[in-house]
Amino acid sequence: MFISFEGTEGVGKTTLIKSLADYLQQQGKDILLTREPGGTPLAEQIRELLLSPQDEAMSENCELLLIFAARAQHIAQVIQPALNAGRWVLSDRFVDASFAYQGGGRGLNVQTIELLRQQFVPVMPHITFWLDAPVELGMQRARKRGALDRFEQEKLEFFQKVRASYQNRANAEPKRFVQLDASQTPAQILEQAIAVLKQKTTLSSS
Amino acid sequence: MFISFEGTEGVGKTTLIKSLADYLQQQGKDILLTREPGGTPLAEQIRELLLSPQDEAMSENCELLLIFAARAQHIAQVIQPALNAGRWVLSDRFVDASFAYQGGGRGLNVQTIELLRQQFVPVMPHITFWLDAPVELGMQRARKRGALDRFEQEKLEFFQKVRASYQNRANAEPKRFVQLDASQTPAQILEQAIAVLKQKTTLSSS
Ligand SMILES: Nc1ncnc2c1ncn2[C@@H]1O[C@H](COP(=O)(O)OP(=O)(O)OP(=O)(O)O)[C@@H](O)[C@H]1O
Ligand SMILES: Nc1ncnc2c1ncn2[C@@H]1O[C@H](COP(=O)(O)OP(=O)(O)OP(=O)(O)O)[C@@H](O)[C@H]1O
Ligand SMILES: [Mg+2]
Ligand SMILES: [Mg+2]
Repeated sequence: MFISFEGTEGVGKTTLIKSLADYLQQQGKDILLTREPGGTPLAEQIRELLLSPQDEAMSENCELLLIFAARAQHIAQVIQPALNAGRWVLSDRFVDASFAYQGGGRGLNVQTIELLRQQFVPVMPHITFWLDAPVELGMQRARKRGALDRFEQEKLEFFQKVRASYQNRANAEPKRFVQLDASQTPAQILEQAIAVLKQKTTLSSS
Repeated sequence: MFISFEGTEGVGKTTLIKSLADYLQQQGKDILLTREPGGTPLAEQIRELLLSPQDEAMSENCELLLIFAARAQHIAQVIQPALNAGRWVLSDRFVDASFAYQGGGRGLNVQTIELLRQQFVPVMPHITFWLDAPVELGMQRARKRGALDRFEQEKLEFFQKVRASYQNRANAEPKRFVQLDASQTPAQILEQAIAVLKQKTTLSSS
């Protein structure tokens, strides 16, 4: 099983993925918990370049290609080997984030992103949990954490476009996407995610 | 004018580009001298990731995408603005190196690289000086410089494939590619490069 977690800033992806990983481990599942951009030492160095505000404006194409570079490394070194070994892979963001942030947010051509996906992303998640809420809510939650990274410094409008792109992708792939109302409590969200896994995976039978 | 300089390790690209830039400046040309991977502070950070040997093996796709990420930044921040301002741009390596190293050397699909070129490289050199010599010659010259980078640590066979790819690209684009015999002295090579520029550019008329 390969499960990704998506949504705009601060909606609760990391909170959910951790509690779900704990739960699955208690159920005896062999879990690999990882994240994007990042997931390997080299990919985390690329993440640093992507997230840390710099004097030099990063071109949109550079940003897109750096993200796919980190992802290529993540897939080759971490995701593919874990899936081959029969582990459950839970990734805090994956390729849908490129469509949402670089496509929707930055306005890059979606066909170009799809082309990169076809060439460089040989594995797709079986289930994608999309934590959805008004972007202001997540930004309020995220702001409490202190210094803002290069993406968090974007305006409200940027994240509204990101959210709309997630909605488009969810509409286009209703079987893979599971929309969760992120304005609920963490306990409610976890419960709903577990219910989905019991329905869609081997979880209930274990 | 946009001129690139290509060839395997240590054949004398940097030596030629510097002497040619000096000459052109003496002729009153406004020269921008740059290099790949790199050419901007951010792209130079990507260069660091690419060249410094690391504990973690870099996947071939990651390498390819990092190089195109650096190139996208280089084009957006440096090459395109300089060309728009009417400057002469001399680049120590450019996109042909991706076909030679990642295509020929690493064996990645040339169509994938061509796809990246079409999507992310809107400017091509008018002239590409290909410094060609048996790869051993360049490796001997380069070895004198001390610690080997991640590419220089490759075996002879790798560079033979790189050289063969440059030959293929020169055959396919005979108008753009100018093959120079890199086993000659620096002065001979410079003289031949100047002669080519006098023939192919506005240089002689200045
Ligand atoms: N359902 C929730 N209700 C209220 N607060 C929450 C909820 N989920 C997470 N939080 C809190 O909101 C903040 C952001 O949560 P979290 O880090 O999980 O979001 P995220 O989606 O991973 O953010 P980012 O996009 O920045 O990685 C944290 O302080 C977290 O404790
Ligand atoms: N034509 C030449 N004859 C003899 N030595 C040369 C010649 N050109 C350059 N060299 C010497 O060979 C070494 C490598 O040259 P240079 O750095 O210009 O090569 P390069 O192609 O830029 O290498 P790299 O691929 O590593 O950047 C230097 O020490 C340089 O002085
Ligand atoms: Mg998070
Ligand atoms: Mg050099």
